[in-house]
Amino acid sequence: MSKSMEKAVNIVQKLMYENDAFSKWMDIVILDISPGNCTLKAEIKPAMLNGFQICHGGVTYSIGDSALAFASNSHGIKAVSVETSISHTKTVYSGDTITAVATEKNLTRRFGIYEVVLHNQKKEIVALFKGTVFRTDKEWEV
Amino acid sequence: MSKSMEKAVNIVQKLMYENDAFSKWMDIVILDISPGNCTLKAEIKPAMLNGFQICHGGVTYSIGDSALAFASNSHGIKAVSVETSISHTKTVYSGDTITAVATEKNLTRRFGIYEVVLHNQKKEIVALFKGTVFRTDKEWEV
Amino acid sequence: MSKSMEKAVNIVQKLMYENDAFSKWMDIVILDISPGNCTLKAEIKPAMLNGFQICHGGVTYSIGDSALAFASNSHGIKAVSVETSISHTKTVYSGDTITAVATEKNLTRRFGIYEVVLHNQKKEIVALFKGTVFRTDKEWEV
Amino acid sequence: MSKSMEKAVNIVQKLMYENDAFSKWMDIVILDISPGNCTLKAEIKPAMLNGFQICHGGVTYSIGDSALAFASNSHGIKAVSVETSISHTKTVYSGDTITAVATEKNLTRRFGIYEVVLHNQKKEIVALFKGTVFRTDKEWEV
Repeated sequence: MSKSMEKAVNIVQKLMYENDAFSKWMDIVILDISPGNCTLKAEIKPAMLNGFQICHGGVTYSIGDSALAFASNSHGIKAVSVETSISHTKTVYSGDTITAVATEKNLTRRFGIYEVVLHNQKKEIVALFKGTVFRTDKEWEV
Repeated sequence: MSKSMEKAVNIVQKLMYENDAFSKWMDIVILDISPGNCTLKAEIKPAMLNGFQICHGGVTYSIGDSALAFASNSHGIKAVSVETSISHTKTVYSGDTITAVATEKNLTRRFGIYEVVLHNQKKEIVALFKGTVFRTDKEWEV
Repeated sequence: MSKSMEKAVNIVQKLMYENDAFSKWMDIVILDISPGNCTLKAEIKPAMLNGFQICHGGVTYSIGDSALAFASNSHGIKAVSVETSISHTKTVYSGDTITAVATEKNLTRRFGIYEVVLHNQKKEIVALFKGTVFRTDKEWEV
Repeated sequence: MSKSMEKAVNIVQKLMYENDAFSKWMDIVILDISPGNCTLKAEIKPAMLNGFQICHGGVTYSIGDSALAFASNSHGIKAVSVETSISHTKTVYSGDTITAVATEKNLTRRFGIYEVVLHNQKKEIVALFKGTVFRTDKEWEV
């Protein structure tokens, strides 16, 4: 594993995920991480359903938002969300396993733009998420 | 209370909120509802924090998304989210009480556009949420 | 007129609008300006129509984007657009006069968030525009 | 050329582009079209500049919006924009040639979601555009 890969993994694992109560409540599992990218998954549980007995849009958003945070911070610079948007394209049910793939679309000194595609266990896209982050002057120390 | 107000309250209370596991997990309390509008609040709990020990962006989004759902469905027509976006403007901490005020900005036969302003107990804006919904051909039966 | 108002007007009039070829092509007329806010109008001309003989969405966006630029720069700090979105809510025709009202929804040291409501001569909303700007370290000199 | 390709080209060329005054003002040239996708280009002219002597954000948006319209209508079903967003990532100057590549990210009976990547002659990304369209019940007749 390269130095930058190792650092990316350390930042996300040690500093962010281990103390992230809400990501833990969602049982988020990180599948892959590299500078600017992240793949993670989570299983939809009954507590995540809304009044229609389908997954609350906020849960799908949260999975995407975690993928955004991990992907954008893994360069080693602390990054904060400026604006995010999500389109829910397919109904998510209890028992579904949702995989979120965050990809860096553009990176400048100050801003990063990410696409997060969320799909279910049948590889059907359930949501398209877009996030813009502001890159602060602070580095992660690991 | 007018007929339309009564119907709006019934739709949200009986059909949506009573069976909404995730809104219940968030302890969402509805403060006010009328056709096209909704005000609700929720207190931020330790389980809602991320790795920075501040409120996970997905929780703030979820509160806004619930307000959107309640406001847009309270006309009596089933409405589903097409696209939502959120800007997090101020850090939210454990113990904060977040109030979400959803206002209808535009309504046509097919689409509704809503602004949800989220503020804390000091009346400081913590997030600005925007949501577009598609109005289906189905009516709520209450 | 107060000092801050005067400065806002000067920034927009002298530095931005007088050399703005595209705003001139659109015949944009500034109706009102104050720090963080701007109202302007433009008349839709045949050259602005698309293949459906209705106003091209890019023209409505451009009117909103000019309002955003003028409103966000009128504080005296150079501001650049980070992300903008627009929902076209009603068809715009040749001959319509479009008024754009830009309102500041939130302002921090680094970011400003603006809503621009665009309406026609019948006061019907034709588009809802939202813009986030990054406030640089540079001041306007007037 | 396949039947569906031929139809896509006919719809865009005959019905949309030939009568599209604003796309013509922008000198938009269609490079490639297939159902759900479109690539086009335009050269930035002095009349498209703003007060900073750089390309007005509305022009970049307009190029992206035309690509969205052509890509989403080329299935043969009339489609209208519901919501679009754009992030301007790099300054565009007079004389630059901007290429817009519209790609379909998701398609359901009612909605299509498109990404439009805009880059300059050096292959640098100048803007990222996202668009959601509503697919009406009307077919294009060609």
